[in-house]
This record gives sequence, C-alpha cells and structure tokens, in this order.
Amino acid sequence: MIEDKNPKRTPLSELGEFKLIEHLTKHFEINQKSTVKSIGDDAAILSFGDKETVISTDLLVEGVHFDLSYVPLKHLGYKAVMVNLSDICAMNAMPTQITVSIAVSNRFPLEALEELYAGITTAAKLYNVDVVGGDTTSSTSGLIISVTALGEVEKDNAVLRSGAKPNDLLVVSCDIGGAYMGLQVLEREKEVFKVNPNSQPDLSMYTYIVERQLKPEARKDIITLLTQLEVRPTSMIDISDGLSSEIIHLCKQSNVGVDLYETKIPLDPQVISTCEEFNIDSTTIALNGGEDYELLMTVSQEDYPKIKGNPNLTVIGYMTEKDKGMHLVTRADEKIAIIAKGWNALNNQS
Amino acid sequence: MIEDKNPKRTPLSELGEFKLIEHLTKHFEINQKSTVKSIGDDAAILSFGDKETVISTDLLVEGVHFDLSYVPLKHLGYKAVMVNLSDICAMNAMPTQITVSIAVSNRFPLEALEELYAGITTAAKLYNVDVVGGDTTSSTSGLIISVTALGEVEKDNAVLRSGAKPNDLLVVSCDIGGAYMGLQVLEREKEVFKVNPNSQPDLSMYTYIVERQLKPEARKDIITLLTQLEVRPTSMIDISDGLSSEIIHLCKQSNVGVDLYETKIPLDPQVISTCEEFNIDSTTIALNGGEDYELLMTVSQEDYPKIKGNPNLTVIGYMTEKDKGMHLVTRADEKIAIIAKGWNALNNQS
Repeated sequence: MIEDKNPKRTPLSELGEFKLIEHLTKHFEINQKSTVKSIGDDAAILSFGDKETVISTDLLVEGVHFDLSYVPLKHLGYKAVMVNLSDICAMNAMPTQITVSIAVSNRFPLEALEELYAGITTAAKLYNVDVVGGDTTSSTSGLIISVTALGEVEKDNAVLRSGAKPNDLLVVSCDIGGAYMGLQVLEREKEVFKVNPNSQPDLSMYTYIVERQLKPEARKDIITLLTQLEVRPTSMIDISDGLSSEIIHLCKQSNVGVDLYETKIPLDPQVISTCEEFNIDSTTIALNGGEDYELLMTVSQEDYPKIKGNPNLTVIGYMTEKDKGMHLVTRADEKIAIIAKGWNALNNQS
Repeated sequence: MIEDKNPKRTPLSELGEFKLIEHLTKHFEINQKSTVKSIGDDAAILSFGDKETVISTDLLVEGVHFDLSYVPLKHLGYKAVMVNLSDICAMNAMPTQITVSIAVSNRFPLEALEELYAGITTAAKLYNVDVVGGDTTSSTSGLIISVTALGEVEKDNAVLRSGAKPNDLLVVSCDIGGAYMGLQVLEREKEVFKVNPNSQPDLSMYTYIVERQLKPEARKDIITLLTQLEVRPTSMIDISDGLSSEIIHLCKQSNVGVDLYETKIPLDPQVISTCEEFNIDSTTIALNGGEDYELLMTVSQEDYPKIKGNPNLTVIGYMTEKDKGMHLVTRADEKIAIIAKGWNALNNQS
C-alpha cells in the first residue's frame, strides 16, 4: 500500500499498439494440447476433440469492481483471471485457455501494465491455462479488463445450475465471508491513509481475509477432488455475489426450495473476530458478502458417504419442494425467507 | 442523426443486473448445432467435434473507437459484432458463437441498451451466430463493449498471417478507403451541427461511404466464395487498421517482401470523388484509412485462373523475397517504401 515515489514511467505512446502487445504478451507460455495457434493472428485456433468446451467472460471496471488505491495491479491481474476460471470450474470443467483485453487511459505508464500482466502470467502458469489472445486499447478514463475463459469437460459431464432435486444436500467449499471482510479492512485503511498519508497499516491480524479479497483462488482443486471422490454434483455455481444470491439462482433454475442452516455455514475465525470488531452480524456477511469464489453445489443424498467429513466440503442445508420456499433456519430455530441482497453492479454506479 | 427529444427513459437501476440481462438477451436465438447450452449459467457449453475452433476478441471504448454523437447505438451494436466476425473470417473460418459484455454509465437509460442489443441481435441473426454469454455491468464513464467470437474450420484449413510465399499474388476483396472517408463526412457534419443544431445534413451523395463506416460487414461471403472456388489463400488478414499496416503484418509474419501497385487498388467512385472534395490523395486513404473490414490475402500463382475476373477479388500486387523489401509501385512507376501509418488506438488517447 506504500507507493514507490520514483518508479520508472515509460509512456505507452513510446511503444505503439503492436510493440505494446508484443511486450506484454511475450511471457505467456503455451502448455495446453488443445492450443493449436495462440496470440499473433486474427484469432487463436483451438482443438477440443471429443470433449465439450465451456466459455465464460467477465468485464472489470476501475471504480466499480476495483479501487487501485488499495489493490496492487499484480493482484488485480491475478484476480481478473481467477474470476473467470471460477466460472469454468463452476461448470465442473477444467480451464484451458483465456483471452485478456485491456483498455487503459494514458495515466498508466508501461510499468503499471507490466505489473498487471505479471499477475495475469502468474495466474495462467499456476492454473495451467494458455493466454491465447486479447486486445489492447486506450480508454478515456481508467482501466478496464475483459477476460474470456475456455475450459473442457467430458461429454455430458458439465454441471448446470438447473439440476438440483428436492432432498439433495446443499454443499459449499472451504469457508465464506472472508473476501467481504477483507474489503472492509482495506477500505478502513484507505480512510486512515487519506487523513494521514504517512501511516503504515498493520494488517497482520487480517492476513487471511485481506488475501481472500486481494488474491482469490478459483477452486480448480475442488473439481479435481470431486472427480477423485466420484461425486458429480447435481447443480453448481460459484459464489461471486454472495451465498443468498447464488442459492436463489440454484433454486430458481432448478425449480426447488431450500432450507439453509445458519449454524452450518463455515466461517473462518478471522471472519468472526473481524465481524465482532466491525459490529456486523457474521451470518449477514456470509449471506450477502460475495467475492469468495467458493463453489456452491447440490449433491445427491446417495453421495453423502463420499463427502462426509471432508474438510473441503461442508453440508449447509438441503433442497426442498419448490412450494416450501427458500429459507434460512436460524440458531433460534426460526425460519426466515432468503432474499438476495448481493452486491449489485448496477446499483453501484457513480 | 436527429434525436427524438422526448424518448422513453427507464433508469437501469429500476431493473437490477439480473433482470436487465434477462431483458436484453431474451431475443437471442440458438441456431448453431455446436451450441449445447447458452446464456444463463456460469459458462456456455459448446461442442465442436472434429473441427478446429477459432477465437477472437475486441474491446470498443466510447470516445476512442466510437462517437455516439453520430453513431446510432443500433449501428454500434452491429459493428461491434462485425469487427469480431471479421477476425474469424480472416482465419478462413465460419463464425458460430459470440459473447457480448458491456459496461455502461448511468447516463444510458434502458432504451439506449435496447437499441444497442437490437443491432447485436440483427448482426447475430444475419450471420447465423449464437450469442452464448456475456457480462453486464456499470462504468464510471461512457460505454464499453467487449465481444469475443468463436468460429469453426476444418482441421488444418485455417489460414494464418504467416503462410505467404514469394511470387504469391496479393489479393483484396471488394474496395477500400470507404469507411475512412465516411468518417470524414460524419465528422464534418458533426461540426456543422455544433454551429447550427437545426441543420439537417444531406448525406445522399455519401450513402455508400457513410454505410461503410456505420454498418461494416464481415466478409463471411468471401470465405464461402473461396471454398466454392476451391482457393485456400496462403495467408490472410482483415483490414481493420489500413492496407499498409495489414500488408506489413503479412510480410513480417511470412518473412517476405511485397510490390503493391497503386493503379490496382480498388476504390469506389464515391471514395474518389469525396477524396477530391476533401482534397486528400485517395491512395493515402486506401493505404492508411482502415475500418473497411475487407479481407487481404495472398494466393498461389497456380490459383490465379480460379480468381481471374472475379468482381469480388482484385489482385493488387505480388509477394517478393524478404530482402527486396516492401514497396508501393506508383502510377509514375516509382518505388516507395511502405510504412505503417494505420490508425493507432494508443496514440488516440485523450
């Protein structure tokens, strides 16, 4: 969060578009068998054989999805890739390729883009995806990142949002609410920094939740785990907007209801303690927080023995007939209707 | 170009993100056999069998790539799709699917987005491509459109930029320079409109070139024609930046030189007359104008009888050994080095 006051600044106009693309993309390696031809032509060429191809795309806009005053560009590049890989994983598919397009205003020097691409390169390498194309252009204000991801899955093995059945178990990976509380901590530090620019933030108490916000991971490992356990979820979605919003998606698209148990929602101790510090109810955060990129799935009761006791998967409720509705069963054993209060990009407009 | 002063304006915040996506995407039809599952899940599912898949992506930014004071939103939607389909065609592939992401500031009401999507829908229908996904979000200023296109091509039939050989013929489809001169006319009218907002522009003399600017077409028909003629170009690229810039791409990536004949460059009479009116050299426009989205290709001498006399294909030069360099042979039979002065997005920054 402390800027180098004299970083090297090479204006983008010094390079021109083609040299810039060449400069930024030269570190991208090709490792996927399905990549026939990568960056450098009108389009990339892919070859998927007998498998099915999944594709997903996301647009990240400065001032709406990220704030560069506390998000390092390298982390932003990493996160922009993760957001898309997470969607591929949520189809029960393995990510294979991405394209990355950016628009930048001339307030960004070359070194800033190098940082951004360093994060993209790290993400691509770690998740074994090939960067096969993109577009680099200018914007009149701020930074815009558009990523499209492709993945492959065995025929008929993709998991949709629409396959949940009554009595299926509702399961979430890892724990949730961390990314949102990390954001609260970062925003508080930003306010402190505005008042006293020489303040050095001590974030050591919040390392887990700050990392959940700045460096989320797509749960490709959970897809591998599910394959190993021989569990094919009946429906699946990634948690980008918040648990309640994602549960509603699954219920609506599957024509089912749900009973979600408050006491079962997995929360990291740092989420609980930070919620206490900020005087916020941790269940509210878990339901509406968003940006955790964990996987939310429904699993047939038959498969329960396979996932029972697995530290990566927590049963948090079960699906019901549609006419039973969508409910949270509270600690006090009361039933409250689940409503979506998830982060809504279109209400965040300035 | 004349606005309705009292159009209906529904604020986007009235709908929310999910309802907006539903509203904007409900007219997209699914016609491609390779589309297994379209919009409405974390990712779309595609299945390409034995063919190869090509993918291309472009980012269009308001104030950089388009000016809404003279580009109707419907045309913009159409053009955003064409720019990408053109890249797919330039691979000798047939476009099959697109994803469309947009970011909009709250200055745009719902009706504006409906116009934009009407153009996207028209383009998708006319070119028989399925819209299979996208992202809809807000921006802090202006409109940003990101389109990713997929296409398919028989195995080993894709045409790269790198396959040109010395003695191959340099061939361009249709005619060039129109889109750039159309832009000059529109920009002149905008200046007139600023001085006198009640002026009614008479564009009847410029219909062809204005349409080339506002409603370009991806030359999918040329790909079909080439298949019918049994001509597989040795290299190909679409003309987005200008003839000289694209020729340089082909030469550099194929390690060849070129002799381009000024007298052979196909120009529409309206381009010639408008160049005279604006007192600009028409060859300069053809070389540097851009945005025509015609196809530039190299064809083996053996295939010359197949393309000879075809009104859609004009031989404008031939490739040479690399050490001969890249030259324009002028009307006066002088040789001038070809240099790229194409439209450069990164120098256009405000």
